[in-house]
Amino acid sequence: MDAQEYLAACLPRVDHALDEALPSASEPPARLHAAMRHLIFPGGKRLRPALALAAAEAVGGDADAVLPAAVAVELVHVYSLVHDDLPCMDDDVERRGRPTVHVAFDEATAVLAGDALLTAAFGALVAGATERDAAARALAVRDLAHAAGAAGLVGGQIDDLAGAFDSAAAVESVHTRKSAALIAAAISTGARLAGASEAQLAVLHAAGIATGIAFQITDDLLDADEDEGCSLVRVIGEAAARERAQALLDSALEQIADLGARAEPLRALLRYAVQRKL
Amino acid sequence: MDAQEYLAACLPRVDHALDEALPSASEPPARLHAAMRHLIFPGGKRLRPALALAAAEAVGGDADAVLPAAVAVELVHVYSLVHDDLPCMDDDVERRGRPTVHVAFDEATAVLAGDALLTAAFGALVAGATERDAAARALAVRDLAHAAGAAGLVGGQIDDLAGAFDSAAAVESVHTRKSAALIAAAISTGARLAGASEAQLAVLHAAGIATGIAFQITDDLLDADEDEGCSLVRVIGEAAARERAQALLDSALEQIADLGARAEPLRALLRYAVQRKL
Repeated sequence: MDAQEYLAACLPRVDHALDEALPSASEPPARLHAAMRHLIFPGGKRLRPALALAAAEAVGGDADAVLPAAVAVELVHVYSLVHDDLPCMDDDVERRGRPTVHVAFDEATAVLAGDALLTAAFGALVAGATERDAAARALAVRDLAHAAGAAGLVGGQIDDLAGAFDSAAAVESVHTRKSAALIAAAISTGARLAGASEAQLAVLHAAGIATGIAFQITDDLLDADEDEGCSLVRVIGEAAARERAQALLDSALEQIADLGARAEPLRALLRYAVQRKL
Repeated sequence: MDAQEYLAACLPRVDHALDEALPSASEPPARLHAAMRHLIFPGGKRLRPALALAAAEAVGGDADAVLPAAVAVELVHVYSLVHDDLPCMDDDVERRGRPTVHVAFDEATAVLAGDALLTAAFGALVAGATERDAAARALAVRDLAHAAGAAGLVGGQIDDLAGAFDSAAAVESVHTRKSAALIAAAISTGARLAGASEAQLAVLHAAGIATGIAFQITDDLLDADEDEGCSLVRVIGEAAARERAQALLDSALEQIADLGARAEPLRALLRYAVQRKL
């Protein structure tokens, strides 16, 4: 199973579902809607949505039934990019070769577009809920709120802004919350909507956290020439960081070894997340 | 039934539930947690939570069972204040006699605290969900996301910032989305978690929208000396605005006339929301 082929196969379904979940840019307030869509289309590889779909397959579920989870995690991911790019945070003017939202529009619109994307994520996660799957949807909302909130993404970002990463543990704590929590939520909410057991969810979540930390260490390795910020390479050096990423990936794959052949797409994506471009 | 007594009676239960829903200010990241709590404690009158509890009583439900809705709408309300106060939006330095969050902390922390409050709202709305009430929780998430997102609160705020309110319809469109949507969501999510029928939810929501617009017109009347912003008083004059608020309140009370005596606390709160300080 080739990860890039799997990503390419997921992309049109995910993009269609994202388009359906977002208000049209031709309807008022058009400026807000255009700003919400600015970083979504064209988007990236849609790694998190693909992880949700692959996790559903890994537990024998129907990938189409978990599109709400795929959409929700991508909307949370993009909202976090929009807010992280703001002048009061990372003050980035360009992303993927295009102006960031506050540059293309203005700062207030970027704050509000991020707010609307985060809100839309939770709306998307329960869209079309039925009596049969309502309990899984409610638990998915709980899991996504945990991954995205003060205990996850937002808490990781505030510690990242505060600096002071003098130990591998401090760096990995930020990586866990700022990157790994949402990657793990993509996998676990996808599997949850596909009917995974609590035991399956526990190993899938653990595999997601390990892979998510390794994913971020890969970013540290790719940006090794930058001499500031939260980076494991700066604290323990390139060779040790590379070893740590591989060990985390190995442990993630071991966690989900029992899921058998139908978890091959998920395994391919986990390998890809850590080994891309290296 | 006296509205102020009802508000005072709800307050300790709501404040306790809010405290439980938020991370402790003594746990890391302490600065984020303190910023999240800055506008929550001490808070306002908790009108929206009280509306959720009164709506539950109005349909014969248990008020304690709907505390998740009461907490969620207050968290959304406070998140919206934190972001609206930002320098790039209304640039307010003081609220209720205390420095706003971006003044007491900093701008990045205020953006992130708002993000975390919004996320916590959805987490609170599904906290403790059971198989029995999961469907109602999922629908409450849908309703709150609709009220808070691009079609509601966020869309109203972006149009408010853009200005140009040359007709009563344009003013009321902003009032509907920026104020009334969340007031209506407080009432309808409270009633939903209390087991209201779809027919009851429809009239309660309509009553909430009418009262929410009238609530905002009351604000316009109280701030009638301010000569800018989205205000019905500026467009149609004080007397006509006062008449319009009363007509909206009358229509709200008529909508819920069939709910009988157990809806008296809700009726008292709706009257209070429109007639306070006038």
